[in-house]
Amino acid sequence: MNRSSKPLIDVCISPALYPQFSPQDSIVVVIDILRATSSICVAFANGASSLVPVATIEDSMAYKTKGFLIGAERQGAMLDGFDFGNSPFSYMDARIKNSNIALTTTNGTKALNIAKNAHTVVVGSFLNIDVLSQWLVKQNRNVICLCAGWKNSMNLEDTLFAGALVDALQNDFDFSDFRDSAIAAQQLYSLAKNDLYGYLDNSSHRKRLERLHIEDDIHYCLQLNKAPVVPVLRGHTLYAL
Amino acid sequence: MNRSSKPLIDVCISPALYPQFSPQDSIVVVIDILRATSSICVAFANGASSLVPVATIEDSMAYKTKGFLIGAERQGAMLDGFDFGNSPFSYMDARIKNSNIALTTTNGTKALNIAKNAHTVVVGSFLNIDVLSQWLVKQNRNVICLCAGWKNSMNLEDTLFAGALVDALQNDFDFSDFRDSAIAAQQLYSLAKNDLYGYLDNSSHRKRLERLHIEDDIHYCLQLNKAPVVPVLRGHTLYAL
Repeated sequence: MNRSSKPLIDVCISPALYPQFSPQDSIVVVIDILRATSSICVAFANGASSLVPVATIEDSMAYKTKGFLIGAERQGAMLDGFDFGNSPFSYMDARIKNSNIALTTTNGTKALNIAKNAHTVVVGSFLNIDVLSQWLVKQNRNVICLCAGWKNSMNLEDTLFAGALVDALQNDFDFSDFRDSAIAAQQLYSLAKNDLYGYLDNSSHRKRLERLHIEDDIHYCLQLNKAPVVPVLRGHTLYAL
Repeated sequence: MNRSSKPLIDVCISPALYPQFSPQDSIVVVIDILRATSSICVAFANGASSLVPVATIEDSMAYKTKGFLIGAERQGAMLDGFDFGNSPFSYMDARIKNSNIALTTTNGTKALNIAKNAHTVVVGSFLNIDVLSQWLVKQNRNVICLCAGWKNSMNLEDTLFAGALVDALQNDFDFSDFRDSAIAAQQLYSLAKNDLYGYLDNSSHRKRLERLHIEDDIHYCLQLNKAPVVPVLRGHTLYAL
């Protein structure tokens, strides 16, 4: 990176495209709007001490015996034997304050795990967009927005948030040579920003979640700055900055 | 596929995402607007008998001894010893009529090769959009728009054409459950369609091609219906339908 110029911002719209990027010197913002990274921001805004993203249900269960609260979601639903699913509302629980949490989700924790080779990994959502973008500007380092998507397919809500971040950072960052996904994300956000909920009406993930009757979760996750913290990965664990 | 309902249309915005799709029963439309699939349409509109997409420069050279005209492009430029590069204008040459051509390009021929497991593979570009979409409607079969992109990254021009095709086919096709990339492509096309050239002004590939001084090629490739043929892959060779 040329320190005399602006740092670069890039958008990776699916984990399957992440191998095209060079994240070793970059900050990776992991994005899973519905609902993992939104819920993680809520947990830290409500005083969680730490959160370990784990790959499997079994890994998550193993943390239970270590005194962790454990969360798990598969196919959009909470699982028996767990303290939480993936709803942001469950992370407003009184038990959250000063707790250590282990969480596994379909896409979000997978994206956090594949981002581990980056210089720094942080968690992004509409709920922390302003504090996150202000913090990113101060770092003067290349940024890659990593959309968790849905099982390696692109999804609109993660791409829209990446576009919102590009929009917020456009004066302080340049696009890389592979700018097209950043341009596309920003332009889709420009179409959607006045009514994110309405815009996502036809999206694939929204349709899937509708079947689960979690419209309140979706409304919550599309609000700005309700959880103004920046979760950062240190080793295998997320902490609030 | 449920034959009693409409077939599905999907958009694969990078070859790296193609493994997520199930193309065995689908028609795959391979898209490399700047410039491989545009030039292939031009070649057939000008009377080429056949065109073999080949992987390497060496493969292309080997066809020379078999009486083929050979084309090659790498890093956007034509190579010494070849009859053509990747410019649509070179495929208007008088030698094209009744010729057999072997062509290798950076992204387009690679995408044609990875699509070979599909039920049917055809070539799409703005230059053949109307005949192509009319033909697709008649097939009553699922369609996957495969964007060649640039070295596995998304690019805007291929995504825009996928969006144009979704737009043209929206009354005759449904979206699959993984509809988000099709929605995104269609919406980006809606932003761009009144001035494709202006819209692509900041795109990554356009910037790369500008360095090669091929603005005329770009203008040509963004026109509608200048080469109204549908190239289809049979075995390893493309023919006009």
